[in-house]
Amino acid sequence: MIAEFDKLLKDKFNIEFNDESLLDEAFTQASYVNEHPKENLKFYERIEFLGDAVYELVVSEYIFKRYPKLPQGRLTRLRAAMVNEHSFSSFARECHFDKYIRLGKGEEKAHARERDSLLCDIFESFIGAVYLDQGMEPVIRFCHQVIFPKLDEGWFDEFFDHKTELQELAQQNGPVDIEYHLLDENGPDNDRKFKVSVSIDGEECGIGTGHSKKNAEQGAAKVALKKYL
Amino acid sequence: MIAEFDKLLKDKFNIEFNDESLLDEAFTQASYVNEHPKENLKFYERIEFLGDAVYELVVSEYIFKRYPKLPQGRLTRLRAAMVNEHSFSSFARECHFDKYIRLGKGEEKAHARERDSLLCDIFESFIGAVYLDQGMEPVIRFCHQVIFPKLDEGWFDEFFDHKTELQELAQQNGPVDIEYHLLDENGPDNDRKFKVSVSIDGEECGIGTGHSKKNAEQGAAKVALKKYL
Repeated sequence: MIAEFDKLLKDKFNIEFNDESLLDEAFTQASYVNEHPKENLKFYERIEFLGDAVYELVVSEYIFKRYPKLPQGRLTRLRAAMVNEHSFSSFARECHFDKYIRLGKGEEKAHARERDSLLCDIFESFIGAVYLDQGMEPVIRFCHQVIFPKLDEGWFDEFFDHKTELQELAQQNGPVDIEYHLLDENGPDNDRKFKVSVSIDGEECGIGTGHSKKNAEQGAAKVALKKYL
Repeated sequence: MIAEFDKLLKDKFNIEFNDESLLDEAFTQASYVNEHPKENLKFYERIEFLGDAVYELVVSEYIFKRYPKLPQGRLTRLRAAMVNEHSFSSFARECHFDKYIRLGKGEEKAHARERDSLLCDIFESFIGAVYLDQGMEPVIRFCHQVIFPKLDEGWFDEFFDHKTELQELAQQNGPVDIEYHLLDENGPDNDRKFKVSVSIDGEECGIGTGHSKKNAEQGAAKVALKKYL
């Protein structure tokens, strides 16, 4: 792998490979291998297979421990949000992985480098390569640096229906009464703002705002959910 | 958890829990928790969520390393065969886990203890509990004892179409010529036996027998596949 990439991994993530060939394999697509038949290269797919399972465990354990009251259904949905093509390809771009993929000429011309599905694969194969080279610890460190802070930044919120989640969670020990109240509504017609509160059994436990009542309700439910986490 | 189960885990799998409450949680269904509201019990679902990811990684890493030439597609199919409800419930029964699940009275009457889906959950939650209590090493040991030998016993063969696998694998570096030849056919009509060979580019690389030509071909392909593993 080229020195520039080694430097990026070291400077940004404090990762130095013992076996550079694993990193090469993780960033090489089959099209490149086919164009260089004499070099006896490997492409990323097998390492990606392993990386997929490694990442899933790291994410699972993190959210399991971070949210000790979260029931299985919500854990599963949160994991699905953190383990999907859209997330992976964003992470890969953020880490500049797209620059260092080795592609065949045809794939390069077809802009494969920008393709979400390829970036998703490469993100997983990177995880797999780190794991094979150095075990679980640096993978966990990488996730703490790149992935887990995104939970607090609301990155995975779009995947959630907070109102449904709140209802499920609040009612897991029997029926409760969840009510949303419109507290305020103001601004011009093209920029209207709504403010909504949510109460559980009469006790207010969250306030949200938004450009629609629905958005404001989702915001209120999100605040209330934090009390249950 | 009852002493008999502790003894079974120690004698059979050399596993002794530091934190028994994890084992309790892993073997307790929600129905039991609901019937004992004052005991502040937990049920298995969260631990199962974690155990699922733990087991998937252990299996992935094992087959990744054991079959260094197996392409991703076959690794994925093999993993799917080893990580499914049918397999899990069999493993759970084999380990006598079904005896030690704590169920509510209604679920007991409804024969939940014999239900594949519950046994599948409990197998995963057991894995999760061992991992939480003692980390990865004893989980790997358990799998080497209970699961991995089944690969050699042909346990997961029914999930495979060996002929398709052989074709995919043999052709991954370019087209080859795969041919099946009927070598022999004998026995009475109601117990006919077939013997088939498979050759790749003219070289014989497997012989199989069966009560149908199709079965004999699958057997021959399976033998040939071993040469590629």
